[in-house]
Amino acid sequence: MSKNRIATRGEDFAAWYQDVIAQAELAEPAEVVKGCMVIRPHGYAVWEKLQAALDKRFKATGHKNAYFPMLIPESFLKREAEHVEGFAPELAVVTIAGGEELEERYVLRPTSETIIGHFFARWIQSWRDLPLLINQWANVIRWEKRTRVFLRTTEFLWQEGHTAHATEEEAREEARRMLEVYADVAENVMGMPVIRGIKTRSEKFAGAERSYCIEAMMQNGLALQAGTSHELGQNFGRAFDVKFQNKEGQLDYVWQTSWGVSTRLIGGLIMTHSDDRGLVLPPKLTPLEAVVVPIYRKDTDRAAIVESSHQVAAALHNARLTVEVDDREGFTPGNKFFYWEQRGIPVTLELGPRDLEAGVVVVKRRDTNQKESVPRENAGAFVAALLERMQSEMYARAQQRLKDNTVVANSFDEVRQILEPVTAERGGGKFVLAHLKDDAVCDAQIKALKATVRCIPLTDEYDGPGKCILTGETVPQRVVIAKAY
Amino acid sequence: MSKNRIATRGEDFAAWYQDVIAQAELAEPAEVVKGCMVIRPHGYAVWEKLQAALDKRFKATGHKNAYFPMLIPESFLKREAEHVEGFAPELAVVTIAGGEELEERYVLRPTSETIIGHFFARWIQSWRDLPLLINQWANVIRWEKRTRVFLRTTEFLWQEGHTAHATEEEAREEARRMLEVYADVAENVMGMPVIRGIKTRSEKFAGAERSYCIEAMMQNGLALQAGTSHELGQNFGRAFDVKFQNKEGQLDYVWQTSWGVSTRLIGGLIMTHSDDRGLVLPPKLTPLEAVVVPIYRKDTDRAAIVESSHQVAAALHNARLTVEVDDREGFTPGNKFFYWEQRGIPVTLELGPRDLEAGVVVVKRRDTNQKESVPRENAGAFVAALLERMQSEMYARAQQRLKDNTVVANSFDEVRQILEPVTAERGGGKFVLAHLKDDAVCDAQIKALKATVRCIPLTDEYDGPGKCILTGETVPQRVVIAKAY
Repeated sequence: MSKNRIATRGEDFAAWYQDVIAQAELAEPAEVVKGCMVIRPHGYAVWEKLQAALDKRFKATGHKNAYFPMLIPESFLKREAEHVEGFAPELAVVTIAGGEELEERYVLRPTSETIIGHFFARWIQSWRDLPLLINQWANVIRWEKRTRVFLRTTEFLWQEGHTAHATEEEAREEARRMLEVYADVAENVMGMPVIRGIKTRSEKFAGAERSYCIEAMMQNGLALQAGTSHELGQNFGRAFDVKFQNKEGQLDYVWQTSWGVSTRLIGGLIMTHSDDRGLVLPPKLTPLEAVVVPIYRKDTDRAAIVESSHQVAAALHNARLTVEVDDREGFTPGNKFFYWEQRGIPVTLELGPRDLEAGVVVVKRRDTNQKESVPRENAGAFVAALLERMQSEMYARAQQRLKDNTVVANSFDEVRQILEPVTAERGGGKFVLAHLKDDAVCDAQIKALKATVRCIPLTDEYDGPGKCILTGETVPQRVVIAKAY
Repeated sequence: MSKNRIATRGEDFAAWYQDVIAQAELAEPAEVVKGCMVIRPHGYAVWEKLQAALDKRFKATGHKNAYFPMLIPESFLKREAEHVEGFAPELAVVTIAGGEELEERYVLRPTSETIIGHFFARWIQSWRDLPLLINQWANVIRWEKRTRVFLRTTEFLWQEGHTAHATEEEAREEARRMLEVYADVAENVMGMPVIRGIKTRSEKFAGAERSYCIEAMMQNGLALQAGTSHELGQNFGRAFDVKFQNKEGQLDYVWQTSWGVSTRLIGGLIMTHSDDRGLVLPPKLTPLEAVVVPIYRKDTDRAAIVESSHQVAAALHNARLTVEVDDREGFTPGNKFFYWEQRGIPVTLELGPRDLEAGVVVVKRRDTNQKESVPRENAGAFVAALLERMQSEMYARAQQRLKDNTVVANSFDEVRQILEPVTAERGGGKFVLAHLKDDAVCDAQIKALKATVRCIPLTDEYDGPGKCILTGETVPQRVVIAKAY
């Protein structure tokens, strides 16, 4: 068990992030494979919990999982002009296979609108075949210049929903429904508050008519795009000839959506809750909810304390909690606490000779570090209730942080000043609310500040229309501007 | 709803196989991507059930899931001589990425011993780090010349277990334990009996010391290799320098295993149970156990019958069964029966006006086509018990078929004669038990018959030692020879 020190958030947020991941053994950069990562068992277990939470909701909203080839004929990408322009710089290309130069080269999927469009055209004939609601769990490859574990990697794991509808309205409803599913998982499972919004025209997905997103604030105030949902209009329908006969007997192109979240969410999870002692997992996403650590100095104490520890674990297990007893030999209790703390396990229970005598166990919360002595016969119910409280308190703290670091600006200069003072502690991060026109020129001006327009919030909780800080034109509402990952 | 006819097994087994898959909408050849397939929702749902059955058992035996890059530096493959020789002809190579020619090219993983070996070397220092028990769910690419949906595709989905141990004995135990897990899932979940065996030296995995396998018999008597588990010895340990300090303080290479099953299992499932009417799914692998079909001619009957159908569904649901009511408008009951029959749903329940009056529902088994009137109040318990019976009867029938089509041969000429008469009905398939030396020359002679030595059974249920039909030398037991997929 290594006792490597974790950089503090105040010293160096980026180093802290890497250290948390390394010490928790969530993942590591693959190095020998440019920009890729290995997701280690603890990280993958968190991903499995996230997948389960998402998949359950996808199925409940009528979607079915399927699987499409990861190799896409290069020509497919070119059929949708904006799409190929957006993705061409990031493509990895297979040119040799089975010992021969390929006649038609394949790209590794950066996303699957094109290949899925091709099959939708085979499966859809009439309005009776609609809506077609498909989801795919898959790996994708985007050749990124600057990578960072979980946040931006050459290969990542994700899900991509692809749906086809008879009308624009239905497609819009679908895109918004799935955005709400993402927001639900972010807020109620990850404990990570998000702003639901629409991307500006220059920030939308390559090939979409409109992109919705959820944006989260990390502890350094930077924004993280946590999920996107796109109205594709009839763009891919036209490109792949996905026609259907409508109820009136006329042929029309389908209206499509696509939506995705990825292993990037784990990065967001880390930067929302973790602290200078390491990873903090919300109860709903931890592969292990509690660990019992027996404490004894004398070998004569050992048997009774280990036995009682297993009884406590059994009580928690009966309360439907996932729990382990850490009775490994050759490690001190201190080693063990440190080990589970760095791995973000929500609750540790300590049981020493005095506790044994007093009929209690000491319950410690990972998030606040608070300890409490609890009668052993109540341990199951106590920890179950505590986990629920932790889940909601972790969310509430993140929500407060988002609120505290969201500020209003009424001029470009103000926006500049707010985003400028990049201190070591906070990374200079704020969400700035300003009136701004949805226009490529305005977006570019914001980019000059090394920030971006994150979104136009779906619900305007602020002060309605106002004058664009750049053009002076009246715009319907404030947008969110921030530095981002 | 198409009413395409399915070829019969007797007419053309290969066409029947394709038709069953197409009509059940399990999958389809991707065509635009050489040798790849699209796994459609019904097929993917079966895969998810299989994954769950396997994953549960992997975790129960101490394995943890992780994820490694799908791109492998080309040089990695070359470090293990046999391994690269075995896989080089099937590799797909990425030579361009991010708009540039790559300096070091990447192959798409055909299997992950090499890249995982590289990371094992980073993670393993001492005997305390062992055993390391990892599993990965992933897609792999092997450029195959002749492909067939599910059975052999350029891209397929699988799991690959990779473990490292301190001793050869522990690695051998692990390889055998996981073979037994595969056999358990094949027999008790898929209802597909298998022969557990060892591959001959010429048939073992490229880079392994010894390969174990499970071999199943399809309805045409052909063999399907359904899963393999390998003792890798110290081969990859040496190639990737995976050393550990043993309890005596000395450095040694780890002993590794790897084991995998893939979407190929779905092909085996189809060819074990399905019939000339289409797919037959065993109860334990069906995404939907029962469908209630309301039958009415007059619209006046409709409301009462549909309501009663939903009550039957609720009763089944309370018995923890997955059930749907097919109350779609615009389809006849006949259409609906045909639809669910082709999709292999184990039980359909028909409810018409007379049944309504008599307080019964007609329960129909997919496998035997038998119908039975059952009092509606017993429907839940009846169907639950029926499903259990179906599961064991489907297995028993497959087991009988395996027994009936396994024959003994005592000379090469006998083997040849048995495997020769390839009739349309049976495809000429038998499992032939013969004494044969584990020797490349013998394997080659069998290959000349367009058959292969499938395995040396782990338990010799036959007559012990005997003379090799080719060399005349005494060998310990009979091997299984068959034509295979």
